[in-house]
Amino acid sequence: MKKLLLAFGLFATAAQAKSPADSVTIRKIYTEILGNSPSYEWLRQLTKGVGPRLSGSAGAQKAVDWSKQLMEKQGFDRVFLQEVMVPHWVRGAKEVAYIQNGKQKITVPIAALGGSIATAPKGVEAPVIEVKNFQELRDLGAEKVKGKIVFFNRPMDPTKLNTFEAYAGAVDQRGNGASEAGKLGAVGAIVRSVTTAMDDNPHTGGMRYATGVPLIPTAAISTNGAELLSKSLKENANLTFYFKQNCEMLPDVKSYNVVGEIKGSEKPEEIIVVGGHLDSWDLAEGAHDDGSGCVQSIEVLRTIKALGIKPKRTIRAVMFMNEENGLRGGVGYADYAKKNNEKHIAAVESDEGGFTPRGFGIVGTAEQRAKVMPWKPLLAPYGLHDIGAGPGGADIGPLAQFGTVLFGFKPDTQRYFDFHHTGIDRFEGVNKRELELGAASMTALVYLLDQYGL
Amino acid sequence: MKKLLLAFGLFATAAQAKSPADSVTIRKIYTEILGNSPSYEWLRQLTKGVGPRLSGSAGAQKAVDWSKQLMEKQGFDRVFLQEVMVPHWVRGAKEVAYIQNGKQKITVPIAALGGSIATAPKGVEAPVIEVKNFQELRDLGAEKVKGKIVFFNRPMDPTKLNTFEAYAGAVDQRGNGASEAGKLGAVGAIVRSVTTAMDDNPHTGGMRYATGVPLIPTAAISTNGAELLSKSLKENANLTFYFKQNCEMLPDVKSYNVVGEIKGSEKPEEIIVVGGHLDSWDLAEGAHDDGSGCVQSIEVLRTIKALGIKPKRTIRAVMFMNEENGLRGGVGYADYAKKNNEKHIAAVESDEGGFTPRGFGIVGTAEQRAKVMPWKPLLAPYGLHDIGAGPGGADIGPLAQFGTVLFGFKPDTQRYFDFHHTGIDRFEGVNKRELELGAASMTALVYLLDQYGL
Repeated sequence: MKKLLLAFGLFATAAQAKSPADSVTIRKIYTEILGNSPSYEWLRQLTKGVGPRLSGSAGAQKAVDWSKQLMEKQGFDRVFLQEVMVPHWVRGAKEVAYIQNGKQKITVPIAALGGSIATAPKGVEAPVIEVKNFQELRDLGAEKVKGKIVFFNRPMDPTKLNTFEAYAGAVDQRGNGASEAGKLGAVGAIVRSVTTAMDDNPHTGGMRYATGVPLIPTAAISTNGAELLSKSLKENANLTFYFKQNCEMLPDVKSYNVVGEIKGSEKPEEIIVVGGHLDSWDLAEGAHDDGSGCVQSIEVLRTIKALGIKPKRTIRAVMFMNEENGLRGGVGYADYAKKNNEKHIAAVESDEGGFTPRGFGIVGTAEQRAKVMPWKPLLAPYGLHDIGAGPGGADIGPLAQFGTVLFGFKPDTQRYFDFHHTGIDRFEGVNKRELELGAASMTALVYLLDQYGL
Repeated sequence: MKKLLLAFGLFATAAQAKSPADSVTIRKIYTEILGNSPSYEWLRQLTKGVGPRLSGSAGAQKAVDWSKQLMEKQGFDRVFLQEVMVPHWVRGAKEVAYIQNGKQKITVPIAALGGSIATAPKGVEAPVIEVKNFQELRDLGAEKVKGKIVFFNRPMDPTKLNTFEAYAGAVDQRGNGASEAGKLGAVGAIVRSVTTAMDDNPHTGGMRYATGVPLIPTAAISTNGAELLSKSLKENANLTFYFKQNCEMLPDVKSYNVVGEIKGSEKPEEIIVVGGHLDSWDLAEGAHDDGSGCVQSIEVLRTIKALGIKPKRTIRAVMFMNEENGLRGGVGYADYAKKNNEKHIAAVESDEGGFTPRGFGIVGTAEQRAKVMPWKPLLAPYGLHDIGAGPGGADIGPLAQFGTVLFGFKPDTQRYFDFHHTGIDRFEGVNKRELELGAASMTALVYLLDQYGL
């Protein structure tokens, strides 16, 4: 058995390993980035200099200008803007909310959800009905919901190892809660922040009104606020909740994806995209979400140039606009590719935070995934063990229609939802080495994609 | 080839998997800890309530009392103190240091190294000679070093993936720099903080005087301070450096390891230890180093009880005293085991921070390591891929003389040396989920060690 294992092991290794030069190049990539990367400084500029950059805002335009100039300075072969129309939602004055429990008035932190309408100027105050899911709400029926504020209080499941899976299991409340509550005559919807952290930071995020339902205002409440409200309701089911918000959806605005490219030397018509999204929520500096993905993507191209690698294929860094509340950048980029008959063989996105790398999720056929498997031994020494079928990325998603293979960079995401869509998603929350290791992992993958195709 | 791979893959899986019940139990362990663990709250008590706890200090005694009471409250079968004499070094008043560059006086952050003598009460001021290593220092010779302050300025190598390897490559300056400089007649030794982070936090840590060398005071300077000093020396080689510190080594003090245990049901005489160290540096709350390891170890035993697991062997949580500047607890524990003819089959230590888990290092024979390999498929779903030969832990090290197999818990350590031995090693730097995942990983390993032995 041992001999068989050994023989098989050697054989497998020989079959899997690409040229030993690959291993040397990948080590050079990590050395270059860990030793010389400007990506952390770029992130400082984007988060502290540019700051929040919700689609349609002055910050978003500043981010477009900043990233275009940065890529031009890097001397990439081509840097260009790709126009898209984006939604323009504004929060207005800071929200106010409190629990009125008898004579006691307790202020709680809320944040309007992106896309929500405002309350009446004087705010809305109503009794509260707490539910954990839509079925429970429907079972209550219009009679019990009418005139109330519906409080969606199902927590993210902390026992799931994969925090994105836990997020997916709770985020329907944020996305569709207002529509479900509005249908039954509610006057507002308050949603527990989608995070496992217990704190005072309300987590905003996108929501959408279903067609034909009455529009009611909706906001996220911090997890501590949600616990307090739930506890207070147990003591006094007749308490009321007050909130006031001033948000507004304005007409669409012209904005841009920002693209930088290194031309391929052998097959320039085959394109490999690496990207992140440039927009952030208005409350956040957007350091993990997704300044990290942006600077990492630019760093991939800088490193290729710095090491004198001449890619066979064209490598493009794309800063997508409007991932957070519309995905217009992702959709617009795919449209652009189609119009120009461009052939995208692969797209890599980093949008799960600037954390220490774990691997890549792949969206493609089983055969395409199988082509990646021989690279695993080259990536394992860098902690990239988690390589297999898995999500790609929202912005690159629309490229799948052309048969482009999608790769979602997978960092360790245990901390991600502590920061997600809040004021604490700041530069200070990103570790320099973790950010750089992510960039190096993405560069290594792009290098292999360029070398061997799919 | 594909068929062979498949057949072999199935065969290998069948051979490797232990009972499917193990997989269920391990999932239960993670669910219990991610859902119900008090370990983060314990860490808050230890860091914020007890606070800094350098060996010999009142804080250390408070930590002993706190952990004994905590384990008693958990209802473990036995909780006891194991006496050890520990060094008692005190920092005294906060250090003062500045660069005197012509008329310009620039204050820089320093921290006396643990074990160092004080300067004269008025401090010491002298010209500075910068070196990168001991060979460079020796090549300069006594003539050029005499009367000077030696400035050791070799950075940790940021290009190494393994931060502990990079640490090992720089820490000789801290441990032995004063002796090497003292031998050549220097009047002080200033050491660049052992971290890749660029900031204003001096990192203290242990140092030792070689026998027979003149004792000179030594301190760590922050990395920003080191860069400034180096730059200033390039501009003006004749500048002077001033520092004053008031530290002192007092007589040894009585202290304790704190031990909690669950008695084995079948082989109570076989002991499995899981531990961390209870002492911290005086500047730090000791959250990552090593409050995390302590609360995780207690959590292992709590979880075993909570799940109704009846271990075959005796499981012990050990809070070791004095890892930072003496290792008396680790040595004393091994002495105690010897005196009592105890049989320790395995020891697990967590002392690389409360970060997201990556695996375990094993110190044992190749055959012992081979016995662990079949467990890998049980641990891989939890991100534990890095299992193989590797360091165990300082405190459990002395048990190796009895043939005890040592396991060093390996979290992801990219951030570890940002915090290490500084004032920012605080509760706030530890993430709840990452801490808990570490505790769950350790519990899973201890469970398997108990089930199958070695």
